[in-house]
Amino acid sequence: MIDERKLIVVSGPSGCGKDTVVKHLMALRDDVLLSVSCTTRKPRVNEVNGVHYYFLTEEEFMRRVEADRMLEYTNYAGNYYGTPLDELEQKLVGDNIVVLIIEVKGAHNVKTRYPDSLCVFIVPPSIEALRERLKGRGTESDEEIEKRIAIAAKELDELHFYDASIKNVVAVECAQQLSDIIDEWQKKEELPKEMKGTC
Amino acid sequence: MIDERKLIVVSGPSGCGKDTVVKHLMALRDDVLLSVSCTTRKPRVNEVNGVHYYFLTEEEFMRRVEADRMLEYTNYAGNYYGTPLDELEQKLVGDNIVVLIIEVKGAHNVKTRYPDSLCVFIVPPSIEALRERLKGRGTESDEEIEKRIAIAAKELDELHFYDASIKNVVAVECAQQLSDIIDEWQKKEELPKEMKGTC
Repeated sequence: MIDERKLIVVSGPSGCGKDTVVKHLMALRDDVLLSVSCTTRKPRVNEVNGVHYYFLTEEEFMRRVEADRMLEYTNYAGNYYGTPLDELEQKLVGDNIVVLIIEVKGAHNVKTRYPDSLCVFIVPPSIEALRERLKGRGTESDEEIEKRIAIAAKELDELHFYDASIKNVVAVECAQQLSDIIDEWQKKEELPKEMKGTC
Repeated sequence: MIDERKLIVVSGPSGCGKDTVVKHLMALRDDVLLSVSCTTRKPRVNEVNGVHYYFLTEEEFMRRVEADRMLEYTNYAGNYYGTPLDELEQKLVGDNIVVLIIEVKGAHNVKTRYPDSLCVFIVPPSIEALRERLKGRGTESDEEIEKRIAIAAKELDELHFYDASIKNVVAVECAQQLSDIIDEWQKKEELPKEMKGTC
């Protein structure tokens, strides 16, 4: 039996800095753990099983989907990505809070299954800032960057679905705001339909 | 074969904030992973195997010690704590850097085995600040706090052994200094006997 209020979903466009924000959040408070996703894609040279992802064969991945042991899953560029329920249940013990970093469609699926979970959207300061960050990474071509910008603009349309949103200007400050929103969420007697963030 | 320069040891008195500093470091840079220790003590209610510790029986722990699969280990309050070599080797792939948070004696053992590893000591701003932090936790009695302060004062005597030391006033700034020291350490053609930090 999952305590839904301990389940936090974080989404945001590629390059908005959501991974960094969540890592700072884990530094700010000891009760936050990160959910590690499963994937069928091959590990990169620096990636460690159980740290970056659980690397599964497609057979093993689909076996878990069929056994209803994936909270949500998606296919991106020919590979599956999903949130394993077993790990979530192992981590959601004591007063622990577990954060899932997943895209908008996955967030929808989690919210449908666990309506009292908290879904937070991380907003880049501006489209221009997002373009600069994606360029700064140096891993995507100009064409790929513009494609991601277009996806980001479309994702911003989904903002109304989220319980809260935070603009990420300074990552550690954004993490502090996220921490405050989590505290507020836990305290609510009855959860509101919508809780406005600072965006 | 371990790349010793990718091995970072962080020590510091109880309450100096070293865990928080290392977590911020992991938010500041993607290449840093944390080593998860083994212990024979029982897990607390919120603790997850493989996240907080690897929880082992004493038989299993000693089996690994005898097989030389513990980089260092110690006994504290009747329980064993150690750094598993298997996990270290799994994480030290690609350009990854692995941080061990261990006490002074363990740091000595790592430095003896891997002389090119970087040992950094986190210094509390003052003994008074340390006392306040330990009180703020609310988990130790006044007597226990004074015992820890005495141990901390003794540990500060060991500072000369470390390659660098950083005073932790603001955790995220301390993490940035640690990150800069790591970069400097990696760049050295030949490692100096001693590299002074900002303390």
